[in-house]
Amino acid sequence: MNTLPHVVIVGAGFGGMEAARRLARAPIRITLIDRRNYHLFQPLLYQVAIAGLAPAQIAYPVRPIFRRQKNLTFVMGEVTGVDFEKRYVKMDGSFLAYDHLILAVGGRTNFFGLQSIEQHALQLKNIESAVEARNHLLEMFELAAREPDAEKRGALLTFVVVGGGPTGVETAGALSELIRLVLAKDYPRMNLTDVRVLLLEAGDHLMGNYPDGLRKATFDLLHRKHVDIQFNTAVAEYDGQAVTFKDGTLLPARTLIWTAGVKAAELTDRLGVELAGLGRVRVESTLQVAGHPEAFIVGDAAYVENGGGQPLPMLATVAVQQARTAAENVRSALKGRAPQPFHYRDPGLLATIGRNAAVARLGGLSFSGFIAWMIWVALHIYRLIGFRNRLVVLINWAWDYFFYDSQVRLITKE
Amino acid sequence: MNTLPHVVIVGAGFGGMEAARRLARAPIRITLIDRRNYHLFQPLLYQVAIAGLAPAQIAYPVRPIFRRQKNLTFVMGEVTGVDFEKRYVKMDGSFLAYDHLILAVGGRTNFFGLQSIEQHALQLKNIESAVEARNHLLEMFELAAREPDAEKRGALLTFVVVGGGPTGVETAGALSELIRLVLAKDYPRMNLTDVRVLLLEAGDHLMGNYPDGLRKATFDLLHRKHVDIQFNTAVAEYDGQAVTFKDGTLLPARTLIWTAGVKAAELTDRLGVELAGLGRVRVESTLQVAGHPEAFIVGDAAYVENGGGQPLPMLATVAVQQARTAAENVRSALKGRAPQPFHYRDPGLLATIGRNAAVARLGGLSFSGFIAWMIWVALHIYRLIGFRNRLVVLINWAWDYFFYDSQVRLITKE
Repeated sequence: MNTLPHVVIVGAGFGGMEAARRLARAPIRITLIDRRNYHLFQPLLYQVAIAGLAPAQIAYPVRPIFRRQKNLTFVMGEVTGVDFEKRYVKMDGSFLAYDHLILAVGGRTNFFGLQSIEQHALQLKNIESAVEARNHLLEMFELAAREPDAEKRGALLTFVVVGGGPTGVETAGALSELIRLVLAKDYPRMNLTDVRVLLLEAGDHLMGNYPDGLRKATFDLLHRKHVDIQFNTAVAEYDGQAVTFKDGTLLPARTLIWTAGVKAAELTDRLGVELAGLGRVRVESTLQVAGHPEAFIVGDAAYVENGGGQPLPMLATVAVQQARTAAENVRSALKGRAPQPFHYRDPGLLATIGRNAAVARLGGLSFSGFIAWMIWVALHIYRLIGFRNRLVVLINWAWDYFFYDSQVRLITKE
Repeated sequence: MNTLPHVVIVGAGFGGMEAARRLARAPIRITLIDRRNYHLFQPLLYQVAIAGLAPAQIAYPVRPIFRRQKNLTFVMGEVTGVDFEKRYVKMDGSFLAYDHLILAVGGRTNFFGLQSIEQHALQLKNIESAVEARNHLLEMFELAAREPDAEKRGALLTFVVVGGGPTGVETAGALSELIRLVLAKDYPRMNLTDVRVLLLEAGDHLMGNYPDGLRKATFDLLHRKHVDIQFNTAVAEYDGQAVTFKDGTLLPARTLIWTAGVKAAELTDRLGVELAGLGRVRVESTLQVAGHPEAFIVGDAAYVENGGGQPLPMLATVAVQQARTAAENVRSALKGRAPQPFHYRDPGLLATIGRNAAVARLGGLSFSGFIAWMIWVALHIYRLIGFRNRLVVLINWAWDYFFYDSQVRLITKE
């Protein structure tokens, strides 16, 4: 019988991977569980959707990453519940007992109960949905090329992105450029003035947590890339053919990409613990589950407030820092020491808008335009896992940049 | 009204692409039609199935390839029939009239009427089926890692490839190496002696059209890579759990990859013309359809005999040479000259068996082993389309070769 303490980590996203790494030398046995056999580099998922990168370039099989970490076993499976009293996780058909648990199950798209949108919209939550979005976008062009009716062609070439946060901004900007710089060459006979890329925001500004100056810079940069930005615009329904707004007006559009909300993964509903907003679990300042000090929750699924009483945003940087604290607290527990509370250190903000354009706030300074964009490119290549991936992505991006090209304009079918 | 003659080419495989290129400077209007928006480099499809390459590395969007060819328009659509009398092709919902037609619709898997196999087997016919095969293979390992029952684990780790031609040989060899050299590192606790890779051939030798010496070399090379080769073995049924042989015996196996036959694409059944074996259309020696001199058929869908009265094999080299002749004959027709009969010039044979191993017959000489393998690698990188693809594939293969690694071990879901 194995006498090492057993630590179960659920989720191989940013939080789970960081926790697993930080516990590499701890005198424990780790089981890392995920529904997929790979870690997804989500910040670049929109690049798959706009045919800029292939899935393999942002998805990293987990096993090779931990090949040298002797205390870790990976299991591909779905965790369907947790018994905090008896200390085991339930998987499809089996149970796994733990001494310590770190839940890093992440988030999912929040459709705010709008069912028709959930059914007909495209989303960027995982590889499959991003590939579906890519296939759909390219197919709209192929159909438009054969469509003689001007109205139908207009709807085929109207692309709506909902949500004015960084994901919506990045997607709308990159999509507009894909169309104007790359697809324009593939469809020489098509009239590009027929194409509309709209970014709809329910509030009155883009990029909620960015300072005013950068919000304005974002608006200007997007505008220059021919994205039609509309504020105070709330979508009520979508049936795949036309968007219905809250005020009742209609916009014929065959494409709607929903990036307007994230909430915690489904598992949190089944844990039987107190949830705060967006399905996130209210945890102690130490990231422990109330009443169950051996269990921790980190990342999108955890509700933690900052100094000002505001919930921390659902970002990769938050998940990674929380995972470090949780891992440290597990180590402390093994040594009989008290856990430490989590303190978030904001590393800044960074979002790209397309070629040569990004906005960044780092070290208290705001940057926009080309310099911010260089920082974005360098940082994202650095954050990728593995030298070969960095090399291949660098080659792909350099090629696309200098040749106004894109490698992955494939329409694949199911 | 456009007075240039209209040439319609159906299919963007090897035949269709070559015909389109050869007619680049002809005073005509070309419409190239395919169900997909990309040209698939089929010889390397098995590499996608064994997680060696990503789909994007062997699939080339058609539009950019013909960007500079002013006389060509690409249309993505499915041709459902042809009216040779009235000279038009029927597409989903529309008709396209032609002055000349080149059908290069290719082939599909031949299951010889074995329905249970058609339903449960994996095949390598297009990107989707190759990705499905890859997901399935990797999933078998993930399930085996969690399977306590030795019998069930045995079935999960038994991989059957049916068909002893080049495709079956290449697939079985590469699969065995993926398992022994790469996956072995991902599953350190798994006992690899549980794994079986079988290659089943109904006849009594591998590689039908290769000379005796190379058949023997193939057998030896495969054997050294731990592939279990069985001759005179005919599969009768497959239900996803076990293989049933013609003699009634059973082999529990959760994976069966069928590479045992090719026949012409479905469209040939609907053309109302005389078919020869495997659904191929019997064409004149000039590749023209009998009674309809403006229509040509090339590639897998065409039945043409060589000097000895044997049908030409269904190979890319045959399709490409036939496409050249068909294109030349269209040009001749435009000038009022007589068409020329097709003569196949066999460039030789070349098939890989895995790392460091291939068999080749070129210029009347037989090669096997490392030299043949180098020739295979160089030729395949050369035949890829586009400098960037060649660079990326070269990097991937070099990395895999030196580090016993594979880039694309992703399990994606639908």
